[in-house]
Amino acid sequence: MEYLKILGSGSALPVVNRNPSSQVLFNQNQFFLIDCGEGTQLSLRKHKISFAKINHIFISHLHGDHYFGLPGLLSSFHLLGRKKELHLYGPPALMDILNLNFKHSYTQLGYELIFHSTLGKTKKLLYEDKGITVYSFPLNHRITCHGFLFEEKPKPRKLSQTAIDKYQIPPESRKLIKLGNDYCNGEISISNDLLTESNPSKPVSYAYCSDNRIKTILASFLKGVTFLYHETTFLEAEKSRAKATFHSTTKEAATLAKLLKVNLLIMGHYSARYPNTSPLLEEAKSIFEHSILGEDGLEVNFKSK
Amino acid sequence: MEYLKILGSGSALPVVNRNPSSQVLFNQNQFFLIDCGEGTQLSLRKHKISFAKINHIFISHLHGDHYFGLPGLLSSFHLLGRKKELHLYGPPALMDILNLNFKHSYTQLGYELIFHSTLGKTKKLLYEDKGITVYSFPLNHRITCHGFLFEEKPKPRKLSQTAIDKYQIPPESRKLIKLGNDYCNGEISISNDLLTESNPSKPVSYAYCSDNRIKTILASFLKGVTFLYHETTFLEAEKSRAKATFHSTTKEAATLAKLLKVNLLIMGHYSARYPNTSPLLEEAKSIFEHSILGEDGLEVNFKSK
Repeated sequence: MEYLKILGSGSALPVVNRNPSSQVLFNQNQFFLIDCGEGTQLSLRKHKISFAKINHIFISHLHGDHYFGLPGLLSSFHLLGRKKELHLYGPPALMDILNLNFKHSYTQLGYELIFHSTLGKTKKLLYEDKGITVYSFPLNHRITCHGFLFEEKPKPRKLSQTAIDKYQIPPESRKLIKLGNDYCNGEISISNDLLTESNPSKPVSYAYCSDNRIKTILASFLKGVTFLYHETTFLEAEKSRAKATFHSTTKEAATLAKLLKVNLLIMGHYSARYPNTSPLLEEAKSIFEHSILGEDGLEVNFKSK
Repeated sequence: MEYLKILGSGSALPVVNRNPSSQVLFNQNQFFLIDCGEGTQLSLRKHKISFAKINHIFISHLHGDHYFGLPGLLSSFHLLGRKKELHLYGPPALMDILNLNFKHSYTQLGYELIFHSTLGKTKKLLYEDKGITVYSFPLNHRITCHGFLFEEKPKPRKLSQTAIDKYQIPPESRKLIKLGNDYCNGEISISNDLLTESNPSKPVSYAYCSDNRIKTILASFLKGVTFLYHETTFLEAEKSRAKATFHSTTKEAATLAKLLKVNLLIMGHYSARYPNTSPLLEEAKSIFEHSILGEDGLEVNFKSK
């Protein structure tokens, strides 16, 4: 996972210069699109994100500020002549809504849209390839809502050619050494340190939590996560409003980030009542220093943190 | 009708700085919203158009670039605490789509949404008040599509107080004189010119035609119209593409404008293949001089033309 780009950091009500929820996660030359609020396709264009590099779209829940941009984006893929299959992950009713849109516009997509339901109250595997694993996990909102956890797999260690020659390591043993094992052939045992070069970069992971009223169980789904996006719709002073609408306050999200010992907390989904978001940042930093405000267009480089 | 403001002049594919179709027509201190492509609510905010002054929304057809912004806008009205009823005019299936959105987001609108179907192959009255009459009329597109005609009613003439006194015109006769009639009481007949002051401004009318492949019958629906918006998706060089997709070329729209002798042709709904729209304007002007390019943010003042 190279970087995250925020396309929309706002919540339901429209605010100039702040789109509703949407992000892209760049990984192994493709973009995972996470939520798709109204205007997402225009933001993708604005930030020069190639439509052709989006193969997986994850929708957290069916409040409009998280998916009203999806019908338009899927139509545009079609109009642009896409042939490559597209994987969509979200609540089951999402396909009913899309199908009704397509039916009345006489749209027959020119590519295969493969739908995967996010269901249940446990952490579930959604997608896996050689470099990454993606899970869904339940959030606590007014309607069924899921977060998404993206975990890089450990990278293989680089073999030291000098050591390979010196200890005459046979090819069939090298894969295990790359994965961090010592070499042992019954006669000799050589520590992995002596056989491989410096440590590969540590795998990073990213969790997307929006919209959500934090419950204790959430931390168990996110154990070990390095980068956390969590909505901070309200300041702690509006906690009663946060409770009533199943959202979180800045203080609550920062407390979770502190508990999880993440590298960075990225905030977002701010209520339109805060034209100035500085107080939200101050409140978060008073609890967890490594907090930043998600803003439209912000890029978070995972490798430099 | 005071002015028209273009909110979106693009077509289906997203283009930076050009939203999909949407316009507002300002009339008697309220806005008629015409089509509502994705991003319309953000454009309304950007152009400081009061949500509370929108009481009537007209949707031409169910291609996404004309209505994908509507579910979000209706939700925002609700979140902002709207209580006033809202009238929506469009194809019958539009309500099915909206209801499915509302169902899955557990949205129960706090205001009454009154839906009026646009149906049929004739010109039909949609709305009327003391100052304006609005009609729908069929367009010729891939799916059922209607245009909208907004006609100002003639304004009453202003009575001359001197003449009223001089000829002792009784109050019950004055209404007819304001409407342009002469005064006649059986004994005397006085010409309207002598009883009223200078002519009130001539009523204007505005026709919205998008998307449409022009057929001969259209001109009969639009007879006498003063301001015409007609889509110009393609240049004449792409006429075969225009035919295939049931759109119009610049030349065709300008020819219609010339035939109708309108005050002004406003163009729009440009294919994304034209990052530079100057050739579209040149082509239109070569046939009908009073042509302008609709652009996002453009305001057309009906009274100054």
